[in-house]
Amino acid sequence: MRVPVLAINFKTYPSAFGDKALAIAKTADKVAKELGNIEIIVIPPFTELRRILEAVEIPVFAQHADPYDYGAHTGWMPITALKDVGVKGVLLNHSEHRIRLDEIVHLVQKARELGLETLVCADTPQAAAAVATVNPVALAVEPPELIGTGVAVSKAKPEVITRTVELVRKVNSEVIILTGAGISSAEDVAKAIELGTAGVLVASAIMKAKDPEKVIREMAEAAVKAIKK
Amino acid sequence: MRVPVLAINFKTYPSAFGDKALAIAKTADKVAKELGNIEIIVIPPFTELRRILEAVEIPVFAQHADPYDYGAHTGWMPITALKDVGVKGVLLNHSEHRIRLDEIVHLVQKARELGLETLVCADTPQAAAAVATVNPVALAVEPPELIGTGVAVSKAKPEVITRTVELVRKVNSEVIILTGAGISSAEDVAKAIELGTAGVLVASAIMKAKDPEKVIREMAEAAVKAIKK
Amino acid sequence: MRVPVLAINFKTYPSAFGDKALAIAKTADKVAKELGNIEIIVIPPFTELRRILEAVEIPVFAQHADPYDYGAHTGWMPITALKDVGVKGVLLNHSEHRIRLDEIVHLVQKARELGLETLVCADTPQAAAAVATVNPVALAVEPPELIGTGVAVSKAKPEVITRTVELVRKVNSEVIILTGAGISSAEDVAKAIELGTAGVLVASAIMKAKDPEKVIREMAEAAVKAIKK
Amino acid sequence: MRVPVLAINFKTYPSAFGDKALAIAKTADKVAKELGNIEIIVIPPFTELRRILEAVEIPVFAQHADPYDYGAHTGWMPITALKDVGVKGVLLNHSEHRIRLDEIVHLVQKARELGLETLVCADTPQAAAAVATVNPVALAVEPPELIGTGVAVSKAKPEVITRTVELVRKVNSEVIILTGAGISSAEDVAKAIELGTAGVLVASAIMKAKDPEKVIREMAEAAVKAIKK
Repeated sequence: MRVPVLAINFKTYPSAFGDKALAIAKTADKVAKELGNIEIIVIPPFTELRRILEAVEIPVFAQHADPYDYGAHTGWMPITALKDVGVKGVLLNHSEHRIRLDEIVHLVQKARELGLETLVCADTPQAAAAVATVNPVALAVEPPELIGTGVAVSKAKPEVITRTVELVRKVNSEVIILTGAGISSAEDVAKAIELGTAGVLVASAIMKAKDPEKVIREMAEAAVKAIKK
Repeated sequence: MRVPVLAINFKTYPSAFGDKALAIAKTADKVAKELGNIEIIVIPPFTELRRILEAVEIPVFAQHADPYDYGAHTGWMPITALKDVGVKGVLLNHSEHRIRLDEIVHLVQKARELGLETLVCADTPQAAAAVATVNPVALAVEPPELIGTGVAVSKAKPEVITRTVELVRKVNSEVIILTGAGISSAEDVAKAIELGTAGVLVASAIMKAKDPEKVIREMAEAAVKAIKK
Repeated sequence: MRVPVLAINFKTYPSAFGDKALAIAKTADKVAKELGNIEIIVIPPFTELRRILEAVEIPVFAQHADPYDYGAHTGWMPITALKDVGVKGVLLNHSEHRIRLDEIVHLVQKARELGLETLVCADTPQAAAAVATVNPVALAVEPPELIGTGVAVSKAKPEVITRTVELVRKVNSEVIILTGAGISSAEDVAKAIELGTAGVLVASAIMKAKDPEKVIREMAEAAVKAIKK
Repeated sequence: MRVPVLAINFKTYPSAFGDKALAIAKTADKVAKELGNIEIIVIPPFTELRRILEAVEIPVFAQHADPYDYGAHTGWMPITALKDVGVKGVLLNHSEHRIRLDEIVHLVQKARELGLETLVCADTPQAAAAVATVNPVALAVEPPELIGTGVAVSKAKPEVITRTVELVRKVNSEVIILTGAGISSAEDVAKAIELGTAGVLVASAIMKAKDPEKVIREMAEAAVKAIKK
């Protein structure tokens, strides 16, 4: 994973499915290619992975993976199968999909063996530090009370970000740290990077935007600009 | 849903993904068209739904649905979204993916509103009767201890099937009743129908077969023949 | 279980523990003995069961049971152990502690074998009918949106109760039907019985009362009076 | 928590309830007082806590706690209530009762605020390191495949213990590290301490023993002897 990072969690908004999802993914792909020096990651629902994988060159992540190998697991999504579907990585432990500690450890290790990247969410600086010991490629700190509010953590609780960076760096010097929750504008992205993280995990600001391309472009440009400082 | 029914649960076997999954779905489609008087349903993982939906005309079901509408539900699969993806129905409460009673009630009602069919699993005749009060389109009784064993419930525990039919019919005269767990041969399918059910829910016997077409064809023909009696 | 029923769910309010819990249980015991013709059931947390069992003669139920036998189940509460602790029954599937359908079936059957009574909650008339097929001793219908509100279901949504009675009686002529959610006054209790149920499941109105004895007595008297009609 | 530690998880074995449980707790109390220089902790089921708390002076822990405050949480066990019941600490994240990472973080912090000690289990050295960043008072590494087998981790997989000590000490110099899983004899206890941990978490070897006092005494003496080296 390169930095800076603009990771777009499609969640299960109406725009996360079908032609709208495909269009947003293609837009992200286009902006990423134009700017060149940013990692834009799209994270669509399971049903949309194959279509989007065929249409874009930027990294596509799954929103979740289950700690299973192939087998008799009706309705679950084995991490092994996701690798073969073609994703570059998986989002894990999102606040809307928390998993057990032993599952985080198992999935991050399994992902590494499979050559998949991992982006693991944490709700507090302390949880982020715990996650960091497990050596995912990246982690995102997201205070759940701000998710989807439009109130950016980088504005409302900057100390959550700086404390996360501090605690994480005590135990892991390499993991990429992202800021999530309430990221709504290019300014929020710049602030997240100024506070010491390498980018953002964003959802509603793009998925609910009237003009997703405008938001993606502004956020990506802000990230590129901020990381240079 | 027409009868007899041959419902194929792809689970997450290696053959449930990619070209193998597509080939099995197409084979099922071909056999269904040739025989004409049987409902063959394919039930692939979420990631394979769109590709298979584009390639076949027989009913495609999802293996599970989450009791959500569109929204902020990272990594989950809202039943509303599945409708828009294009499935004809959903499998619910499989023994590998049990859900709460209130979720069964909610999902079956929501599916009905959306025009989706439901096939709800139950592990015992008593659970099947409880499910029947909720009015799904179909239910399948599957003693978990026989699933994946190759020992058919219709042979090993025929009384589970007859008792299920008896208890279910006391509370619901219309729901389609299927037999699951260990169904391995055409003979097992015939037996399931002779015992009073309208078909089978099968997985490993087809998904792990060297020649899935042969198994699908034999089972389908046995079902058609048995239902006529 | 005799009728009418006044089942008091202690939940985990501050008054559900220690001397306050003991006092409320003793009060319920006293009122039950004075009135004679009512079944008052107390349902305290696990930690309080033994103390209360030693102090009262009325039925004591557990708030939940796990579908295990004795064994290696750290931190869970096997239904078998609860029997030996001495409870007369268990509350199952409360809206704050929903369980899977297969667990409801298993626990109700296991309870019957052990000689324990069961009181199973349901959130809708449809779920109540499903529960009724499993033959618990009693069930309570509780629309979750009214729980703890002080707005009684018997006032705000009487049709939920009458519909529950209607659907349940189609499949089970014997199960005792209780009304829950928002029951706050003697009047609510009377209404619940007039609508065709055999009593109430109540929590905050008693556990948060300044004078629990007054509330218990008024509700019990209203139940006795209403049931005679 | 003093060292060395002999923590006895009663689980839900038949001997974990009633008079047998009380007798084992009293025996542990007696041995602890006789030896003086060892921390013997008893960890009984919720229903037995009050009786045992009244009968012994050694630390009594709960087997689990739910991340709730007092309130409407039917059938759950708020950590706040456990404090008031009188336990000295709580066992968390046992392999039979795994919890989410965010719950571990929340419960350990809440316990600290309440003045409760925490003993958090982990299944691997990596998970143990993650747990260590959260600063519980103690942690126990227990490979689940050895739990209840009578094959001690200290014999069968000593590298799990040494690796745990190594990874944990990189991030936390103070947390007490215990060895669990398959501890069956005084020799296993000695080995666990020689490998660098401060004691053991043991269950079946004591709870299923014909003579629990003999096992407790031998293990405690072995721990005291080994820690002096």
